[in-house]
Amino acid sequence: MNWIGDLTALLGTSKVTDNETVLQHHSHDESYHQAVLPDVVVFPESTDDIVQVLQFANYHRIPVVPFGAGSSLEGHTVPVQHGISVDLTNMHQILEIRPNDFLACVEPGVTRKQLNEQLRRFGLFFPVDPGADATIGGMAATGASGTTTVRYGAMRDNVRSLTVVLADGRVIETGSLASKSSSGYNLTHLFVGSEGTLGVISKIWLRLYGLPQKEVAARAQFHSVAECVNASVALISAGIPAARLELVSPRIMNAINQYSHTSYDEVPTLFIAFHGNEGSIDTDVALAQEILTDEGCITVDFESETDARNTLWSARHTAAPAFMHQHPGKGHMTTDVCVPLSKLPAAISFAEQMMAEYNVEGGIVGHVGDGNFHVSMAVNPQDSEQLKRAEAFNEALVKHALEAGGTCTGEHGVGLGKKKYQSLEHGDALDVMRSIKFALDKLGIMNPGKLVDTDK
Amino acid sequence: MNWIGDLTALLGTSKVTDNETVLQHHSHDESYHQAVLPDVVVFPESTDDIVQVLQFANYHRIPVVPFGAGSSLEGHTVPVQHGISVDLTNMHQILEIRPNDFLACVEPGVTRKQLNEQLRRFGLFFPVDPGADATIGGMAATGASGTTTVRYGAMRDNVRSLTVVLADGRVIETGSLASKSSSGYNLTHLFVGSEGTLGVISKIWLRLYGLPQKEVAARAQFHSVAECVNASVALISAGIPAARLELVSPRIMNAINQYSHTSYDEVPTLFIAFHGNEGSIDTDVALAQEILTDEGCITVDFESETDARNTLWSARHTAAPAFMHQHPGKGHMTTDVCVPLSKLPAAISFAEQMMAEYNVEGGIVGHVGDGNFHVSMAVNPQDSEQLKRAEAFNEALVKHALEAGGTCTGEHGVGLGKKKYQSLEHGDALDVMRSIKFALDKLGIMNPGKLVDTDK
Repeated sequence: MNWIGDLTALLGTSKVTDNETVLQHHSHDESYHQAVLPDVVVFPESTDDIVQVLQFANYHRIPVVPFGAGSSLEGHTVPVQHGISVDLTNMHQILEIRPNDFLACVEPGVTRKQLNEQLRRFGLFFPVDPGADATIGGMAATGASGTTTVRYGAMRDNVRSLTVVLADGRVIETGSLASKSSSGYNLTHLFVGSEGTLGVISKIWLRLYGLPQKEVAARAQFHSVAECVNASVALISAGIPAARLELVSPRIMNAINQYSHTSYDEVPTLFIAFHGNEGSIDTDVALAQEILTDEGCITVDFESETDARNTLWSARHTAAPAFMHQHPGKGHMTTDVCVPLSKLPAAISFAEQMMAEYNVEGGIVGHVGDGNFHVSMAVNPQDSEQLKRAEAFNEALVKHALEAGGTCTGEHGVGLGKKKYQSLEHGDALDVMRSIKFALDKLGIMNPGKLVDTDK
Repeated sequence: MNWIGDLTALLGTSKVTDNETVLQHHSHDESYHQAVLPDVVVFPESTDDIVQVLQFANYHRIPVVPFGAGSSLEGHTVPVQHGISVDLTNMHQILEIRPNDFLACVEPGVTRKQLNEQLRRFGLFFPVDPGADATIGGMAATGASGTTTVRYGAMRDNVRSLTVVLADGRVIETGSLASKSSSGYNLTHLFVGSEGTLGVISKIWLRLYGLPQKEVAARAQFHSVAECVNASVALISAGIPAARLELVSPRIMNAINQYSHTSYDEVPTLFIAFHGNEGSIDTDVALAQEILTDEGCITVDFESETDARNTLWSARHTAAPAFMHQHPGKGHMTTDVCVPLSKLPAAISFAEQMMAEYNVEGGIVGHVGDGNFHVSMAVNPQDSEQLKRAEAFNEALVKHALEAGGTCTGEHGVGLGKKKYQSLEHGDALDVMRSIKFALDKLGIMNPGKLVDTDK
């Protein structure tokens, strides 16, 4: 059956392609997961276009995989059962900014940097900042977070309302624009983090924040990663409202220096941001300095100049590409456990121990204020022995985190890579997830093979 | 069939009763909704007891209604189809407090005041404070919030993980103890606010906060409610991190004075709380004072003494009982719309206008920092003409709020009273809620008649 011809006739030739290069581009994400080509890529320009695609796909039982910037890290966008890759980057309009309500409405293909550029003139910003310049739709679907989560929350905390096209083409709006609601089941938080397995997000209302009156950035250097982690826990426990609290290991500091042409000391380092008003920020900084010193900090450098701060944070944001840059041709595997704060020191020292035990080379970065850290590894997907060791290491970390009451993924999502841990993490709650998946996508066309299977 | 006898044999006589007084107590909540007697009341003492009740009820298709403090305001706990009222107040243990993780684990019958008494010695508190001393289980099931939501969030923001007994007796744990997670569908936020229609909550992990280093309370008096509301919007827009921002109308100030033996001026008043450290709070207070003056405030009194602050906030918390105390024998009906902040001034002035038009007597209180306000009305449920007018007034407010992008209920929940607005508010998303309800409670035994119907 020539369904691609039918789909092209339905949407118009400008929105559908099976060009080899475009298929290649939609066959992978930024991770080590094996690429798989979709049969076709569509570029909807409106919610109605998405409705047409899904009605068509549902009727013909063709798998549908939503695609944004392709920056996911667990194979979310890999069309493992082929079918239609729905590229949402042509839906890139910022539809509305409401400064007085601290709200913006965007199409799913808008990226976080694009949005923040437009928000600046209103004195506003959207805080969630994963490493990549991801699309807002992708960030919502993944349940992403970033370096500012410790202060401003993750996507789930900052998505106010969604328009979603369901598997059968029905369009729903979730939630409202009110800052809180007890009206009905919370569908917004169900679709955030559902990774395209329940529907395609076609519009997003986001919560915004006023740009802080004053910002200070600090780099605090320590003798050991353990000291770094203990200092972070001490800062959070003391109630210091850090806006960012990032651990970077020497291995990653080295990659950052090479990649960003910086010359930071290659020692265990905490990158800290303070946001506040004139009155509060001095108090916070002074108290932080005291705690850092007590915790054995070698030196701490404060940057209140905008340029120096920007250099520092953009260097931190390039940690993952910087690390991969040192390993050309390799695939990126990264762990993503998140644990209660008091369990973080043990989790990170366990990770260091296991790296030695499994003979894995990796660099640690951590959103330590959230209890979340990553071990970045460069793996050769063709080297099955190396891949196996890296996966065994990952699994050891996940089990350790689950025993500590944590989660296998703090912010990267389940996708393909964390699916094998879902039963261990959720127990019988996984059956409830399966029931919900089945209730909303009876034919299993939405991003099949990811997050949860209905055919257990 | 003598199922009550069988249930008694199953659980033991100490946990089951059909004593008339006890049935009466479980036939209503604190609202105007018509009382209905359950057939029997059970008092589980453990998750296992709840499992037994639900397996029994599911097998015999008997309705089950969870019951906590009975302080709901939309008839949530009224067993409209009779059956089993599951009173959870004998499950009142605080199971664990983890100061270093800012977490506590409680049984559903623990009340918010009971919890805060135990937390104080750790320098911690749980912020969500609805008017009543509700149970934590009830607050989670309702998706409650309170006066501190503007700063600390609602229940949904502060429940980390739940143990839930499903309709068929399966027990699941939702979420994890990590501060963020992208692992699987977010079931925690689905059960928070599900009003006992998807399962019975048997254990709750809550997020805690450090007691603020310094607190200041303020009472700002205005010539009109409109000025009060505009001043609140100005404070929020200026980024003042008020911990509470409460509007009280003259009618309610009068009720508070009579009930709490206070002598506050009976004029439109903003009650404001500031939480912070020495450095920040003075800056916040000074800036707030400037804005309040610009907005036409008559006087503003600051209280930094603990006793004066406590008197002020406990007076504010008694607003609803104080108002009802002036109307003996009447039932309490309260509106609960919540709108985006910029729409709040128009919504409140619309409410005042409609009170005149519908000849409704009521008092306004508002969590104005959240865009949420209530009109408290004392109605005689036997006076159908009066009830009809009050309901028509309520409906006019809801429609106005929905047109402004808001919600029919900011914090009281749907229950019986807001069910008629669910279709208007959620459109086709209501069908998704129905699918989820059906997927998790096929026989419809969980709190039937509330929130959403499956038989449609």
